[in-house]
Amino acid sequence: MHRNQLNFSGGPGALPDTVLEQVRQTVIELPETGLSVLGMSHRSPWFLRLLEETEADLRALLRIPNDYSVVFLQGGSSLQFSMIPMNFAVPGAAAPDYVTSGYWSRKVVDEASRVVAMRTVWDGRESGYRTLPDLTGLDWDPRASYRHYVSNETVEGLQFPAVTDSGGSQLIADMSSDFMSRTFDVGAYGMVYAHAQKNLGPAGVTVAIIRNALLDRIPDTLPPMLDYRTHIRHRSNFNTPPVFAIDVMARVLRWIRDDIGGLDAMADINARKAAALYAVLDELREVIVGHAQKAVRSTMNVAFRFKDSRLDTRFIELAAEAGLSGLNGHRSIGGLRASLYNAVSEQAVGRLTAFLKEFALRHA
Amino acid sequence: MHRNQLNFSGGPGALPDTVLEQVRQTVIELPETGLSVLGMSHRSPWFLRLLEETEADLRALLRIPNDYSVVFLQGGSSLQFSMIPMNFAVPGAAAPDYVTSGYWSRKVVDEASRVVAMRTVWDGRESGYRTLPDLTGLDWDPRASYRHYVSNETVEGLQFPAVTDSGGSQLIADMSSDFMSRTFDVGAYGMVYAHAQKNLGPAGVTVAIIRNALLDRIPDTLPPMLDYRTHIRHRSNFNTPPVFAIDVMARVLRWIRDDIGGLDAMADINARKAAALYAVLDELREVIVGHAQKAVRSTMNVAFRFKDSRLDTRFIELAAEAGLSGLNGHRSIGGLRASLYNAVSEQAVGRLTAFLKEFALRHA
Repeated sequence: MHRNQLNFSGGPGALPDTVLEQVRQTVIELPETGLSVLGMSHRSPWFLRLLEETEADLRALLRIPNDYSVVFLQGGSSLQFSMIPMNFAVPGAAAPDYVTSGYWSRKVVDEASRVVAMRTVWDGRESGYRTLPDLTGLDWDPRASYRHYVSNETVEGLQFPAVTDSGGSQLIADMSSDFMSRTFDVGAYGMVYAHAQKNLGPAGVTVAIIRNALLDRIPDTLPPMLDYRTHIRHRSNFNTPPVFAIDVMARVLRWIRDDIGGLDAMADINARKAAALYAVLDELREVIVGHAQKAVRSTMNVAFRFKDSRLDTRFIELAAEAGLSGLNGHRSIGGLRASLYNAVSEQAVGRLTAFLKEFALRHA
Repeated sequence: MHRNQLNFSGGPGALPDTVLEQVRQTVIELPETGLSVLGMSHRSPWFLRLLEETEADLRALLRIPNDYSVVFLQGGSSLQFSMIPMNFAVPGAAAPDYVTSGYWSRKVVDEASRVVAMRTVWDGRESGYRTLPDLTGLDWDPRASYRHYVSNETVEGLQFPAVTDSGGSQLIADMSSDFMSRTFDVGAYGMVYAHAQKNLGPAGVTVAIIRNALLDRIPDTLPPMLDYRTHIRHRSNFNTPPVFAIDVMARVLRWIRDDIGGLDAMADINARKAAALYAVLDELREVIVGHAQKAVRSTMNVAFRFKDSRLDTRFIELAAEAGLSGLNGHRSIGGLRASLYNAVSEQAVGRLTAFLKEFALRHA
């Protein structure tokens, strides 16, 4: 029953099979070095080249402008929640503005508010976190140190459209759950960050892309490990980085570039996958309710439930038996959730939609 | 030339072959779950059980008393350098005391001094960091918040004997490069910490063992990610932990327990390995100089150089051709270094000593 499950988990999530096949080899021996990737020195020529190439691949795939730095960090997005105000909340400027659009952005605010007095510019609580605002229409404080939002709410399955013009350099986005799933204009942001364990690699590494002009604000009193400039200056190699997680991420980036054909192609595939699943949910609307309002449905995370809640449990059981794993909703809202990260194939989504229809026919 | 090198790197270092063989399987599919370990949710029953078992194995192997907490963190030892003073430097108490015995402990002091006014109770600079003090004889300030030292200097190859009675609860040790290589009395410490990438697993996870009485000191103003109590309360699962690195660490601990037979047996093997290598260095003393004074020689890292420094480069080249990798000394002191972490076998050390003797005979 447990052989070879398809992984629809909210994260850590599925990685591409071709990458896993490479890793199967590298954990024993990296052909270039004759050593296991798990025992590679972070000062080795192999790793220094890997860091350079990974940054170059990210820059090419996302068309990152030259006046941005790219760093690979530890501590997940959660450490960023504190590091961002530590580094960028300018003393004397107005409090930073935060958008609270779901479970994840509430976590961001919980942590950030321990570091800095911040202001909530919008909160989706009244709608039960089923909708999102138009970012350009919000009552942003023009004097705020920065503006923070979460581009995709993993738990509720809400996604902002890509921002094309933020009209300022101080927009910061947590893109943990939709980074590298579509193109976006890096130049519209002051900073973008994402942990790897959705679309990029295993848990343990976080990517941050930071506009260099923001670095001037950083106070000189921060502990070096919590100062972005330390990691930028040492090219993500100040202390021992998570070598393995970075190597897997590098392989996922090459897969997007070479096997998929780039981020536009990746975005097309992701749009088709989401459209296929939402079409079936709409078809089954007499027995299934989606969580998100239609206009803000996420291509990455699809949260839904059966009107008869007993069917949710039954669905998870039978799906696991049929080889479909990780479909339980987040503990905070219950129900069901299918996560359609980059490595979840169209075939896998086909298996899920077929199973959903059959289940509804038999049990609902 | 690059096939199947033996890894004598200072870290990340070698891992046991049997563990690597298991990982070769788990990256494709964990038999218990039908999913790749790289895509396992940190909220899955499998991972929750793994966290419990890993802590239990550590507790059993080290005989950790019940009034200590065990947590798995990100950010390497380097983040601990800042977190320790943030959490444990008591306002109003005397400055914490630090021992500076080599490259690594100088790094500790560099970082910690950015957070707190600290005092250096001993510095080995005059000896060129070739010797160590008797810890019990130092001029510790009895009112200091805590006392910090590094149990093994990775770069210079100096190792303190295991502390058996510190006479207080406030002794803190960075054991990154000799943790789990020998037994020690956890009860003699307030806190012990170690990153995984020497004797425990891949880079990306750090173990901290903290006496619970110390937790009362932690100020309530820290960002949650930087407050040890957050990670203790959430049993190392506050935010997404490095699932893969923890799973590999768990497998290394089982290897120590089941294949090696526990920490006493591990310590015996490590002592034999070091004795074998130092015996050859002593035998070759006309052409080779060891860095450390004899009384403080490390069992983990053996730093040495040829009297004719041109031979160092030649040695590294020919060793690599013979399948012996990672023998260059740290960039800060140059020369040569052989690291003999747990996963470096007695056979591997035998290959190294044989090669050393032959090289000296032919070239020195």
